[in-house]
Amino acid sequence: MKKVKIGLVGFGTIGSGVYNLLKKNSSLISERTGLDISIAKICDIRLDQVKKEVHDVALTEKWEEVTGDKEIDIVVELIGGIEPARSILTSALKNGKSAVTANKKLLAETGFDIFQSAGGSRAKLGFEASVAGGVPSILTIRTGMVANNIKSIMGILNGTTNYILTKMAELGLPFDEALKEAQKKGFAEADPTFDIEGYDAGHKISILAMLAYNRRVDCKSLQIEGITKITPLDIAYARDMGYVIKLLGIARMVNGLLDIRVHPAMLPEKHPLASARNEFNAVLYDGDMTDPIILFGKGAGSLPTASAVVSDIVQLAEKSEIEERPFLITGDAVYLKPEQRRSKYYMRIHTEDSPGILSIISGVFGKFGISIASVIQKEVESEYVPLIIMTHEAAEDKIILARKEINNFDFISGDVTMIRVEESGIYGENNEQ
Amino acid sequence: MKKVKIGLVGFGTIGSGVYNLLKKNSSLISERTGLDISIAKICDIRLDQVKKEVHDVALTEKWEEVTGDKEIDIVVELIGGIEPARSILTSALKNGKSAVTANKKLLAETGFDIFQSAGGSRAKLGFEASVAGGVPSILTIRTGMVANNIKSIMGILNGTTNYILTKMAELGLPFDEALKEAQKKGFAEADPTFDIEGYDAGHKISILAMLAYNRRVDCKSLQIEGITKITPLDIAYARDMGYVIKLLGIARMVNGLLDIRVHPAMLPEKHPLASARNEFNAVLYDGDMTDPIILFGKGAGSLPTASAVVSDIVQLAEKSEIEERPFLITGDAVYLKPEQRRSKYYMRIHTEDSPGILSIISGVFGKFGISIASVIQKEVESEYVPLIIMTHEAAEDKIILARKEINNFDFISGDVTMIRVEESGIYGENNEQ
Repeated sequence: MKKVKIGLVGFGTIGSGVYNLLKKNSSLISERTGLDISIAKICDIRLDQVKKEVHDVALTEKWEEVTGDKEIDIVVELIGGIEPARSILTSALKNGKSAVTANKKLLAETGFDIFQSAGGSRAKLGFEASVAGGVPSILTIRTGMVANNIKSIMGILNGTTNYILTKMAELGLPFDEALKEAQKKGFAEADPTFDIEGYDAGHKISILAMLAYNRRVDCKSLQIEGITKITPLDIAYARDMGYVIKLLGIARMVNGLLDIRVHPAMLPEKHPLASARNEFNAVLYDGDMTDPIILFGKGAGSLPTASAVVSDIVQLAEKSEIEERPFLITGDAVYLKPEQRRSKYYMRIHTEDSPGILSIISGVFGKFGISIASVIQKEVESEYVPLIIMTHEAAEDKIILARKEINNFDFISGDVTMIRVEESGIYGENNEQ
Repeated sequence: MKKVKIGLVGFGTIGSGVYNLLKKNSSLISERTGLDISIAKICDIRLDQVKKEVHDVALTEKWEEVTGDKEIDIVVELIGGIEPARSILTSALKNGKSAVTANKKLLAETGFDIFQSAGGSRAKLGFEASVAGGVPSILTIRTGMVANNIKSIMGILNGTTNYILTKMAELGLPFDEALKEAQKKGFAEADPTFDIEGYDAGHKISILAMLAYNRRVDCKSLQIEGITKITPLDIAYARDMGYVIKLLGIARMVNGLLDIRVHPAMLPEKHPLASARNEFNAVLYDGDMTDPIILFGKGAGSLPTASAVVSDIVQLAEKSEIEERPFLITGDAVYLKPEQRRSKYYMRIHTEDSPGILSIISGVFGKFGISIASVIQKEVESEYVPLIIMTHEAAEDKIILARKEINNFDFISGDVTMIRVEESGIYGENNEQ
């Protein structure tokens, strides 16, 4: 049986997951793969913590003692962030080792430079755990769908926000309370900004887009909107109209221009992505050969993510004699401008309840050539009443102009909430109900 | 760029799909993989047909001229059935070539003997296209979830029956008319027996179970029920109770005993598998590390299946210098007996509409210790009225006995319809609504 020695750098949630997974399932993995995988060394700066759990593995505080260890075949970097993570991976690859990482920040923000700088275009690097935890999202797009031109990617890529939106929808909680609930259950950090503002999903959709389109994506130039402005009212209106609200990462290649963004969107309630509840992730890849393929599962957590890390380890160990798939970035992405987009839009406007206002507001839509599909205005005992407008398909630049003009009216309270509607079905035009 | 020469045996739906896929996407595939894949020879017994479409590839009617061709690296068998498919694959592997097949019948009915007989336990054989067409169901279970003990597999694995059940549910069509509709759309064969009686799904769940549990499954000993007895009435009652009816392939390892079967089942309408409409397939793998992972997409068709074939070609071409993953069958499966199963059961009984009958029937359930959860009996103008009984969780042997006894009453018309209820959620006990 072929022995595979692992060096683990970072013993947090995922690192201890890898340790515990191998403890439980290593004989099963050996039976299936013929590989005898063991952890030879663990590096962490909080060694006292590690010692409480681990008694059978060499420990160190210096990552150089892992990347420089001749016994170690594969270095697993699980500390996150840019440095020293980048140095660890570069050093491991330069020393002829394979490397595995779950580091979405590093891959997204540096545009996979790790491939170029360390191993040329053929670095033996696994990064399944960087997107959607235990869901084989990278394997599917790189290998399962390798023969497909990817028409679009649409994903619920962040478990924290999906958990919050689920609780808001199912229990009618306002955002703040749903966030607290998520923090209590361990699905949100003490500082949840990175998740709730959509940056985490932005990293993940950037990685998927780079894999699908072989273009470098600058994740800092992505259009990103979080979920903090979504209210239970929006969710209730969406439901009345047959939609659910999800935070989506979207990437599409439109005539050579990359349309890539993260924002809350309304999905038809029967759309398969809509059924992803709680902390689950789901991603849809629309291939020109396969048509839509959807993956669905836990996108975070110790053991699901460890499962992805060990899947990478197995793949790299099996390929150790040959060169890994080249990873080609053939240039920088050129982006579709937001104003070139079209969809239906949901708008919530809080207005004074007096005659003539509906006429003024609908006049603004008319001025910009935006056709209104439906209006909901219910009797409410309040100074300001919610006016819900659903448009027909319209150009986003017109919507932005109309919204700006309406925001300026003095009979409006607060800003107009705008949520995009993603109507694209998965069963094809002639196949829908 | 590494050249990879393919020999295609069988130029039907999938074969021509592979030809057309490579014509359209081969430069994309080269860019991604560094492989220059081309078809060197096509074998088919209807060469006149092939010549109408193909002008740039050598043709033959003899498969030996493909498997014996020194120029060819990978033989793709797409003729189906046991012989000569088995000889083609064996011959290719013995000649040191890799092989790809979509042949679920061969793999399921011969229990992967092709691995043992031809290439030892390390035959370089790809068979992604044998289950769920374009959905990477094999890749996910063998590679993506390689580190998981698979607790259960549950899948909608046959597009024909899913299309029929969808049309019955959405248009209220009886089975026969929905079948005709499926035939018209090309989703059902002229002789649909193999699909509608559940045999095709039986082959697929057998293959998945062998991969998950490394035990030989005798697909002839599977319990298989088709969908021909499902009526629009059952579908309507299911909907009233919050369920949809799907034909499921199920495999679970229960204390070392394999529970494997194909039958119609009621799924909660919010279950992610329930959202698979029309010809779509969906499969749920419940891993001990990942928890449920669900895949979803087109399970058949020329181009989706070709996508799976070419994914295998790429994987085999990348691995050509090393041995393929060993495929170990460590023994024959030992089966859970049907009577050891428990679930809730839906029963539809057509009875005369006279006093006392409900009491007699419920008495039978009581005698076998089966607790009734709900009873629906609606006013109908007919000699026989449908009586719907939903049980609490019960043992299947008791249900079978009760059903037999009720079938014998002379106030009953026809046989009692029994449909199992699969309640297992995917969000965990404490996480459900």
